[in-house]
Amino acid sequence: MKYAFAKRVRHLQSSAVRDILKVVGRGDIISFAGGLPDDELFPFKGIEEAFSRVFAAGKGSALQYAETEGYRPLRESILERMEVKKGIKNYSNDEILITTGSQQAIDLFSRIMLGPGDVILTEDPTYLAALQVFHSYEANVVAVDSDDDGMLPEDLELKMKQLKPKAVYVVPTFSNPAGRVWSLERRKELVGLAHKYNVVIFEDDPYGELQFLKDETYVPLAALDDGSHVLYTSTFSKIAVPALRTGWIMGPYQIIRMMSQAKQANDLHTNSLSQQALYQLCTNFDLDGHIEHLSKVYKERMEVMVKCLTHSNLSGMSFVKPKGGMFLWIELSERLNTTILLNEAVKNGVAYVPGEPFYAGIAKKNTMRLNFTHSSPETIQKGIQSLVTVLSKNVDEQEHFFV
Amino acid sequence: MKYAFAKRVRHLQSSAVRDILKVVGRGDIISFAGGLPDDELFPFKGIEEAFSRVFAAGKGSALQYAETEGYRPLRESILERMEVKKGIKNYSNDEILITTGSQQAIDLFSRIMLGPGDVILTEDPTYLAALQVFHSYEANVVAVDSDDDGMLPEDLELKMKQLKPKAVYVVPTFSNPAGRVWSLERRKELVGLAHKYNVVIFEDDPYGELQFLKDETYVPLAALDDGSHVLYTSTFSKIAVPALRTGWIMGPYQIIRMMSQAKQANDLHTNSLSQQALYQLCTNFDLDGHIEHLSKVYKERMEVMVKCLTHSNLSGMSFVKPKGGMFLWIELSERLNTTILLNEAVKNGVAYVPGEPFYAGIAKKNTMRLNFTHSSPETIQKGIQSLVTVLSKNVDEQEHFFV
Repeated sequence: MKYAFAKRVRHLQSSAVRDILKVVGRGDIISFAGGLPDDELFPFKGIEEAFSRVFAAGKGSALQYAETEGYRPLRESILERMEVKKGIKNYSNDEILITTGSQQAIDLFSRIMLGPGDVILTEDPTYLAALQVFHSYEANVVAVDSDDDGMLPEDLELKMKQLKPKAVYVVPTFSNPAGRVWSLERRKELVGLAHKYNVVIFEDDPYGELQFLKDETYVPLAALDDGSHVLYTSTFSKIAVPALRTGWIMGPYQIIRMMSQAKQANDLHTNSLSQQALYQLCTNFDLDGHIEHLSKVYKERMEVMVKCLTHSNLSGMSFVKPKGGMFLWIELSERLNTTILLNEAVKNGVAYVPGEPFYAGIAKKNTMRLNFTHSSPETIQKGIQSLVTVLSKNVDEQEHFFV
Repeated sequence: MKYAFAKRVRHLQSSAVRDILKVVGRGDIISFAGGLPDDELFPFKGIEEAFSRVFAAGKGSALQYAETEGYRPLRESILERMEVKKGIKNYSNDEILITTGSQQAIDLFSRIMLGPGDVILTEDPTYLAALQVFHSYEANVVAVDSDDDGMLPEDLELKMKQLKPKAVYVVPTFSNPAGRVWSLERRKELVGLAHKYNVVIFEDDPYGELQFLKDETYVPLAALDDGSHVLYTSTFSKIAVPALRTGWIMGPYQIIRMMSQAKQANDLHTNSLSQQALYQLCTNFDLDGHIEHLSKVYKERMEVMVKCLTHSNLSGMSFVKPKGGMFLWIELSERLNTTILLNEAVKNGVAYVPGEPFYAGIAKKNTMRLNFTHSSPETIQKGIQSLVTVLSKNVDEQEHFFV
């Protein structure tokens, strides 16, 4: 039988990252592809104890249907943490929604905000699974010119004025894929322009706490706003564990309420046993100490990767050394197409994500994203060696060809 | 600021059930409103042990990101269970998707299948949160004439022929809200017509295992089909616990694959720690024995409710005694409007769900849904007494008025 799918599925494709993960996960390949934290660093005992505490209370009601908005003590705990850690203090208990991971926050926001043809502005490159969601609601995704400090205000204002976007989607701190950090000035300019042109900002901050330079401060857009124009989402996936699929979104009451109604239609509520366990984790476990340890280990791995790449002297390569997060973004000789080269790399025992699917606008096909959090320093050395072998060979061939 | 929501949110409203639950949950009111299982009957120890087993294996990878399609051993376990218990044997491991509750299965199916104006046929009355989802994708929901045995084949065929629906949504066994069971003949006729007119059937079966008459057999539509036209969804919420938000959907590969891609955009994957625990529950716990016990207790409660209602001799009341599930559906004197009466009932200490929001077509406003699984027999007696007091008073007043 031929099934008559809705028009919007034209935009639904399995993401490149996950398709690669599937193949790579099976073999003996070093993968810098997935956006995975290291499961050997998970707070396994902490999570186990957190669940034990919930079960020890012995209440059947802990396993009953629950409020769509989320487990109230967890919401309060997150609000407090966000105020202390991030300086976000505009939101009350009614202005936070617990979501099934921050992916669902992106999806619910798009569902209530983006109709066919509606414009949403993004960085370029940006998180590919967000692009996938925007496209699935048939939105018109437009990239704003950016440099290493964030979106360029001139282009941003021009596009706000001309295209009347519904929203701007940004990952301003340790972005995926580029690993970049917006300057404070650019953050302020974005919030200012959002107010001037009445545009909602969707701030996606899954990596913000994985910070490598202790003395630097990265103020979230939500802390620069008055509570009217910024939605802020983050998740336990990177600072605790991904398996529990628990994230949150904070923002203006009207939007959070509408998202909560969309969530009710979508999955009723987020797994509430996990929410109760995460509340226990926040309360009885040294989450800050854990994050500090995580950041230290991830920084060491990043340094190893940077060192290996620098020593390789690969012709035409450039990158910005990450100040946090999970990714290193590389630009190569313009003669290389990383999408085409992926197959050869995988055959040579190493995987990455080609840059192409991260672009909303014209893709730079000579880019790639490397994850440094899921491999040991030894594996990183070995993997980068394999990768450089493939790249060097191809650069040389191309140069030979072009001579 | 005025936020420019997408057109589709016009159809998103907080469901009546959940709004009532919120108010009722706070007070000292006997609630027959929520579709809640009894949390004192939850397999609390079984769930606790299931989680312990997962933690005892001590693998960090248990807490890592996981496959969108679901935890493979759980999928296999469900497939096997569905074959043994339900006679469903058309589907392979690639034709089942683990969802964040069966609500998500309804939502993902609608997302990939229903565009603005697309027709979906339903029973009348039917599950209100399904109606909410269909409307949120701007579908045209059309009710098919039904009696106590299911949809009337003549009206069904007429509407299939004339309206070219994308799908038919049905809850053929112990339906929500009507608590009805389709006859085998009607089931066969529906599957036959679906083949004739190339329409997909979405079979929602959350209550099928809560069966009160042991010697009867209710064959799922999925077991009457050849694997090409029926999607079958069910959940652990009613047979185990709702907090874990874990359900499943089985169906033709192309549809399951497309839903899986939509799920990836929606929430990446279902909580995988819970999936692993539920696999342990299926493997190491007497789930069938538990369901048998549940059904026995729920049947007793249903009998108490039926007895109280029968003894009340309320003028103009009728209902069909449920053969399973969680709900009793009552039709009252045509002079009563249960939506209007709800306030008075709540003031008198008892809550129910008015029938109106369950209708896709013209609502019978003299109907209500009563849940009998979440209250003890004593509470049921007390609650029905309060309810009957309110209803009798209003019937009498109306009769007096009409004399």
